[in-house]
Amino acid sequence: MGIHTYFQSLNDLERIIRCPGKFKFEEHSVSAHSWKVVQYAKTLADIEESKGVTVDWKKLYEITSSHDYGEIFIGDIKTPVKHYSMELRSMLQQVEEGMIAHFIDEHIPEEFKPIFRRQLREGKDESVEGLILEVADKLDQIYEAFTELKRGNTEKEFIVMYRNALIKIKAIKLHCVNYFLENILPDMVNEGSTSSIDIVQITNEALAS
Amino acid sequence: MGIHTYFQSLNDLERIIRCPGKFKFEEHSVSAHSWKVVQYAKTLADIEESKGVTVDWKKLYEITSSHDYGEIFIGDIKTPVKHYSMELRSMLQQVEEGMIAHFIDEHIPEEFKPIFRRQLREGKDESVEGLILEVADKLDQIYEAFTELKRGNTEKEFIVMYRNALIKIKAIKLHCVNYFLENILPDMVNEGSTSSIDIVQITNEALAS
Amino acid sequence: MGIHTYFQSLNDLERIIRCPGKFKFEEHSVSAHSWKVVQYAKTLADIEESKGVTVDWKKLYEITSSHDYGEIFIGDIKTPVKHYSMELRSMLQQVEEGMIAHFIDEHIPEEFKPIFRRQLREGKDESVEGLILEVADKLDQIYEAFTELKRGNTEKEFIVMYRNALIKIKAIKLHCVNYFLENILPDMVNEGSTSSIDIVQITNEALAS
Amino acid sequence: MGIHTYFQSLNDLERIIRCPGKFKFEEHSVSAHSWKVVQYAKTLADIEESKGVTVDWKKLYEITSSHDYGEIFIGDIKTPVKHYSMELRSMLQQVEEGMIAHFIDEHIPEEFKPIFRRQLREGKDESVEGLILEVADKLDQIYEAFTELKRGNTEKEFIVMYRNALIKIKAIKLHCVNYFLENILPDMVNEGSTSSIDIVQITNEALAS
Amino acid sequence: MGIHTYFQSLNDLERIIRCPGKFKFEEHSVSAHSWKVVQYAKTLADIEESKGVTVDWKKLYEITSSHDYGEIFIGDIKTPVKHYSMELRSMLQQVEEGMIAHFIDEHIPEEFKPIFRRQLREGKDESVEGLILEVADKLDQIYEAFTELKRGNTEKEFIVMYRNALIKIKAIKLHCVNYFLENILPDMVNEGSTSSIDIVQITNEALAS
Amino acid sequence: MGIHTYFQSLNDLERIIRCPGKFKFEEHSVSAHSWKVVQYAKTLADIEESKGVTVDWKKLYEITSSHDYGEIFIGDIKTPVKHYSMELRSMLQQVEEGMIAHFIDEHIPEEFKPIFRRQLREGKDESVEGLILEVADKLDQIYEAFTELKRGNTEKEFIVMYRNALIKIKAIKLHCVNYFLENILPDMVNEGSTSSIDIVQITNEALAS
Repeated sequence: MGIHTYFQSLNDLERIIRCPGKFKFEEHSVSAHSWKVVQYAKTLADIEESKGVTVDWKKLYEITSSHDYGEIFIGDIKTPVKHYSMELRSMLQQVEEGMIAHFIDEHIPEEFKPIFRRQLREGKDESVEGLILEVADKLDQIYEAFTELKRGNTEKEFIVMYRNALIKIKAIKLHCVNYFLENILPDMVNEGSTSSIDIVQITNEALAS
Repeated sequence: MGIHTYFQSLNDLERIIRCPGKFKFEEHSVSAHSWKVVQYAKTLADIEESKGVTVDWKKLYEITSSHDYGEIFIGDIKTPVKHYSMELRSMLQQVEEGMIAHFIDEHIPEEFKPIFRRQLREGKDESVEGLILEVADKLDQIYEAFTELKRGNTEKEFIVMYRNALIKIKAIKLHCVNYFLENILPDMVNEGSTSSIDIVQITNEALAS
Repeated sequence: MGIHTYFQSLNDLERIIRCPGKFKFEEHSVSAHSWKVVQYAKTLADIEESKGVTVDWKKLYEITSSHDYGEIFIGDIKTPVKHYSMELRSMLQQVEEGMIAHFIDEHIPEEFKPIFRRQLREGKDESVEGLILEVADKLDQIYEAFTELKRGNTEKEFIVMYRNALIKIKAIKLHCVNYFLENILPDMVNEGSTSSIDIVQITNEALAS
Repeated sequence: MGIHTYFQSLNDLERIIRCPGKFKFEEHSVSAHSWKVVQYAKTLADIEESKGVTVDWKKLYEITSSHDYGEIFIGDIKTPVKHYSMELRSMLQQVEEGMIAHFIDEHIPEEFKPIFRRQLREGKDESVEGLILEVADKLDQIYEAFTELKRGNTEKEFIVMYRNALIKIKAIKLHCVNYFLENILPDMVNEGSTSSIDIVQITNEALAS
Repeated sequence: MGIHTYFQSLNDLERIIRCPGKFKFEEHSVSAHSWKVVQYAKTLADIEESKGVTVDWKKLYEITSSHDYGEIFIGDIKTPVKHYSMELRSMLQQVEEGMIAHFIDEHIPEEFKPIFRRQLREGKDESVEGLILEVADKLDQIYEAFTELKRGNTEKEFIVMYRNALIKIKAIKLHCVNYFLENILPDMVNEGSTSSIDIVQITNEALAS
Repeated sequence: MGIHTYFQSLNDLERIIRCPGKFKFEEHSVSAHSWKVVQYAKTLADIEESKGVTVDWKKLYEITSSHDYGEIFIGDIKTPVKHYSMELRSMLQQVEEGMIAHFIDEHIPEEFKPIFRRQLREGKDESVEGLILEVADKLDQIYEAFTELKRGNTEKEFIVMYRNALIKIKAIKLHCVNYFLENILPDMVNEGSTSSIDIVQITNEALAS
């Protein structure tokens, strides 16, 4: 009961492995992914601040750290399923929100319910913080896929993951996205040049699309 | 392409772990689960036959072995999510069927398409074979949960899994279900008597409900 | 005791890893292997049926699903050991049969003993079903080895496994073997062309031998 | 090079397991630990804020997320070693700071060096944020140990971990510590009452010391 | 080729897990087992020396470190299989010796062949060193089984392992065996008193048999 | 208490993985490493003996088998940390020696204390046995790194490990080192020629330095 139950539930995310089913040289838990998203977002926000953008750090902290908390209830549902149709995506989001709401009602003490309802809501929106979260989340998708491709993993799924994340990121209008495209991505692609998979080509196609 | 792609896809089910998120002393892959369901169903069908029931073994073979094949596309979605609402359950089933249909269209040679469409359809129905599959599937849920409870796993989820599977099974009108309740379940409960969890009580409550 | 003990014993096969000792990028349990053999055999039997051959599906179901059940007692003994001499092979088979017989005598209820004795016997023989099982079993050996070779695994053992399984399969006179050689194998080899190991050459040598 | 190298280095923490050497039913990576600390700290800070304390959320975000970043360079050194003597503790801290400084000098672009130097410094100090970090870090130590004890793990190390973390926490003067002692800890101890290990006794002894 | 091939082959034993098939809370590789046997034997030999017995340390070193080397070729064959009949045991030993001999002939340089033939022979005999090896090997069987029983593992196999190893050890006439029975075993049993399994009773029965 | 506690402590080394943090295709426990060092040292000592050098086999046995025993207390501290400064290295060695001494005082029976103090001391010195241990230890570092490089692992750490171990070995004046450089290393490098990483170049640079 109480905050104890919430704290203990966090462990579940270390037991959920991302991208299940496909062969990968290295697995990543949802906890580790969440932590990396928190870390990326911090640096991405620093870049925004350096360009004069105001960042609500408390909001960023809240939405990045809990952005996959709902997976405790609904698990890691494959992207092609989640996005099969607008209707299904919307329904799954409702289920997730419903289960989170139920959890809060049942376990979180009255005085903290409003805080938790705010913190465990969907964080991706059009605000600077929401967009930074989206970039950070997709960035980890790029890194997960890139690392597999660099090691020569031929599962098509990783090429698709890499592509789609890159396409999503470049569409977001933030300074940190420009920084990523101009500085981080080239360093990544350069490192991936020894792979048996043509990461340069995949990257260029994605950027051109 | 072709049957090769289908054969190779089977490996994915060894990489999907059932019941992700909760602590378990032992993990089970969807492949291992599928194989056990094939095995249970065989014995359950033998029991039906011994009572004079006719079993279509080819049908049983087909529907048991492929009963979770769709998880290659939609993954192992948590039961509380799948059954959140009739609407969502129906939609997820459509997604799964759609993805399977797409796979068959894309990869299975023309001459085998009808066979695959029949074999990869949802096998649980009111036929003897469909009911045996349902019992076998729930039986593995009982065994997975029982084994964790016997080892002292206090995750509530396993008590729920055990209960629900038992309730589902006892509602199915088959001779093998009677055999299970009269012979197999008592042996199981007896073995679980050394556990720190009161399996006898949980069992009796489920049978009484 | 009873069928419960038999059902529970099935779990052991998920804890036995095939081909222990050699480095592999991915491990496979005997359960997962058994399930894939059940799946391959189904498709191979469909191909036979499509050519007018009659298949006893109940027999096929029984012999494919339990074909490695004996490993619960004797483990996964390395092939070079099993085949060291006709004498040893025969002796190990006796041990396995003896242990299975003992298990049935001790745990299987009287009324099911005949069924279990039939189902847990060695399934590979000259019947269509027995030959399909042999092909399916060797086919998984090919896939296991191929997947490692494709990823660049240089352990000689996998080249030997791949070769030997291919040589065994092509010697079996079944329509599904022709289908495999004409359709499935070329797709597989084509997919393996990006590997640092010359799978084309290994395949051609095996087919020519 | 660059931020790419920093982003990639984050993966190392998923490969370092906490508390190596001792038997544990469940392992935890440093990444997962870091994410939980970020989560605990958020709630602990919410409690402080609810009591009228001002929290610098940006600072909290920075020091919690990176608090174990240095382990990428020095690994997870056992506590009894780290604290063997003030001299060694100080020296190891210097090594860690030196290696982090070297990493920043070598890889972080000039314009971000000041930010990284601030973010990757030791965060535990007498500020509210520093104290919250200390509580959150020790809280995860409590949870890790408690979960093992609850499952009946008899390794003395976990009793020591649990005790020491509890003693450290109760000495910190924060509202959230009172909340923990009055609400969260009792819920935890109550849950642990089914364990074969007397968690109640261990807890009371620690609180009394 | 050469000593390089021998050195590299040693890695295989880290990939072979002892006692496959049965559920265990913790797995042990053959390498780790071999190292523990080397360690136990050292202490057991110290005890013999302290009682005035002369120990050939070079011989002890050779036979303990390589005592399971043959498993690289024949794997870890289950004890009930190995000992099914004197005939089979003898045949498996021949296979192992044959494969080791073949390996030495093929890979070991001429000048070292005699040394390797001596070092990779079966070390268990009636000499002090051979008996110490037997005790050390059985001691690890006791420890492996004890640790599982202490954690509440109900697999009968571990009770059998524990019993049989204890019975074997007490029959060996060495001072270190007396020391074990009088000092080490009581400490072990005392530690196991918190287990849900009656280790005291199992121990006493074995000692009395 | 007693020897039992010492015997049981050996298990800890199977739970400590070498080189944590960096991606590796295959992990190695400290136990497995220790066993391989015992094995390498045996062959290296045989080579010395064949050149007329006298080897104290008891001493060799003692110092090789326990050479990493101290990691039970201090863990596997990363090399760049251990060697950060002479001062830190010396201090860590003191901590290790202190913890070992404390363990012996607390658990080892009086009559064996002198033996254990001798056996668990630092074995690397200028004696033949001490130098053989140093070579064997570095040899396993070479093999661990080589195996990763051969599989295409691009983590710089393995190139550094390989280089440094090679440089250390070639500086040691023993016959077995010459044998290694003239016979074993060429075989290893030849085997690594199919790797995407230029092992030949790395080897030559190290040998030339």
